Amino acid sequence: MKLGLDISGGDFAPRANVLGAILALEQLPDDVELVLIGREDEIRSILKEKEFVSDRISVVNAPDIITMEDHPTRAIPQKPNSSISVGFELLAQKKIDSFASTGNTGAMLVGSMYKVNAIPGVIRPCITSVLPIVNGQNSIILDVGSNADCKPDVLYQFASLGSIYAKSVMNIDNPRVGLLNIGEEEGKGNLLTQTAYKLMKGSEDFNFVGNIEGRDLFTGKADVVVCDGFTGNIVLKQAEGMYSITKELGIKDNYLDRFNYENYGGTPILGVNSDVIIGHGISNDIAVKNMMCLAHDVASSELTKKIKEAFK
Amino acid sequence: MKLGLDISGGDFAPRANVLGAILALEQLPDDVELVLIGREDEIRSILKEKEFVSDRISVVNAPDIITMEDHPTRAIPQKPNSSISVGFELLAQKKIDSFASTGNTGAMLVGSMYKVNAIPGVIRPCITSVLPIVNGQNSIILDVGSNADCKPDVLYQFASLGSIYAKSVMNIDNPRVGLLNIGEEEGKGNLLTQTAYKLMKGSEDFNFVGNIEGRDLFTGKADVVVCDGFTGNIVLKQAEGMYSITKELGIKDNYLDRFNYENYGGTPILGVNSDVIIGHGISNDIAVKNMMCLAHDVASSELTKKIKEAFK
Repeated sequence: MKLGLDISGGDFAPRANVLGAILALEQLPDDVELVLIGREDEIRSILKEKEFVSDRISVVNAPDIITMEDHPTRAIPQKPNSSISVGFELLAQKKIDSFASTGNTGAMLVGSMYKVNAIPGVIRPCITSVLPIVNGQNSIILDVGSNADCKPDVLYQFASLGSIYAKSVMNIDNPRVGLLNIGEEEGKGNLLTQTAYKLMKGSEDFNFVGNIEGRDLFTGKADVVVCDGFTGNIVLKQAEGMYSITKELGIKDNYLDRFNYENYGGTPILGVNSDVIIGHGISNDIAVKNMMCLAHDVASSELTKKIKEAFK
Repeated sequence: MKLGLDISGGDFAPRANVLGAILALEQLPDDVELVLIGREDEIRSILKEKEFVSDRISVVNAPDIITMEDHPTRAIPQKPNSSISVGFELLAQKKIDSFASTGNTGAMLVGSMYKVNAIPGVIRPCITSVLPIVNGQNSIILDVGSNADCKPDVLYQFASLGSIYAKSVMNIDNPRVGLLNIGEEEGKGNLLTQTAYKLMKGSEDFNFVGNIEGRDLFTGKADVVVCDGFTGNIVLKQAEGMYSITKELGIKDNYLDRFNYENYGGTPILGVNSDVIIGHGISNDIAVKNMMCLAHDVASSELTKKIKEAFK
């Protein structure tokens, strides 16, 4: 299995990315190879400094960089020699089995849509985030930002995508799917969630358990929490912000530590034709390592194949 | 000044409400009288048990109760002798200067709209919640649930209403108004926030400081955070849920303690013709006391008059 990694993306590139790759190789099975995509001289210099030699690492030169300031839709055609453009090219040619980046999220989403395409039947691919549950388990929430405006049928598909992800990658049996809403009873909510509830109720595609209120995001009432990308992004950033504040205040707690993004490494883009993984822009080496472990879990689980079958 | 209090509303009624009234009277200026609205025999029995005698308390008998299960729009006409119906009647007749309840929020909102009416020019009255800021100050967020679906001009009005509230009741000079959004730059967001941003930008009605992301809800980048009621309710409940978890985990911290709802007592319904205050359904005596102090602050600040002038 060959996992591609963008070495030029993220705030601490290229160093954190190369170091993360080295850490990942120590943890991943022997048959996993990493393909580092970025400025070859820089990559080789860091590998040399670390005296790291392995036939499980190869380097593909991509001298250009898509920065956080580049326009997501224009960046890939404008910068064909950037690490993100080269990564998608390798993925499209099946020279790598997955492509992971901590770079410009917008460009990664656009690349996924135009270079590898949405799976037929999927209206809108989406991204997820982990919700650390107080009982020690993890739930996921989706979408967390790639689709700010959603229609009810799109939320229905998020429920399917999230359910398949929870089953395949998180090994949760018959995942409970909740709809993030303002009130527990049917009929509560805005026009979007009221209609989505009707679609989801009695679905045979997933195990719908009803509405989930904001206060139950971390109590484990659902394994998969579905919402539009606007709401999900606010939820995610609010949780991140609260975690930062507890760190600033010097509050130490094992549960709160689970809100540290670096534990999770990122999210696959659910609903596209190949495995694409997005990491946080502020990723350090640990986060990059975990992103590559997630890339491996996603590839091993045959998630994309399972989604394709479900949406046939 | 006569402040009306629903004694039958909330999970711990009538006891917590009567005890909260007694606590409030100890704290409020001498010229403030409380009008307790509920089952007279029960109220008098609790006052007697506490050996509380004061000419600053009067009782209005309202034998019926609107419960949390009653339908918000039908409850008031169906139960004219309920404490909420009687309270609105007294308010409409100007026999009390404000009416506060920890009962059925939906019925309180409906009563506000049909018994005291929206201020002319206000499209949708709304409710607020306090955001405890890590620097010790408080911001507010609105709407937090009375309007699940909003149009951009409604968000614009929330900004005006919140700004007047922050100025008048919270004594914040030239309050900074932020739009809750997913991204800091203009152009980010869903269709609603993209359009609302354009309306708010350069407004002379309030001091617009741009988009606020979820991670900055508690960092004090804005004094007034504006959003639709769906998003605001999720934010509020998520914060409440996280606070509950920290309590369960035994985490002690002065900042986190400021998320305890009982510190704030409730919210006025902004944009209606008289002062109506809504408290949390789980209010204990301290929360009821603080709700009555808020009712006093709102009445003293002439908030409603100021809103009327602004919307002329």
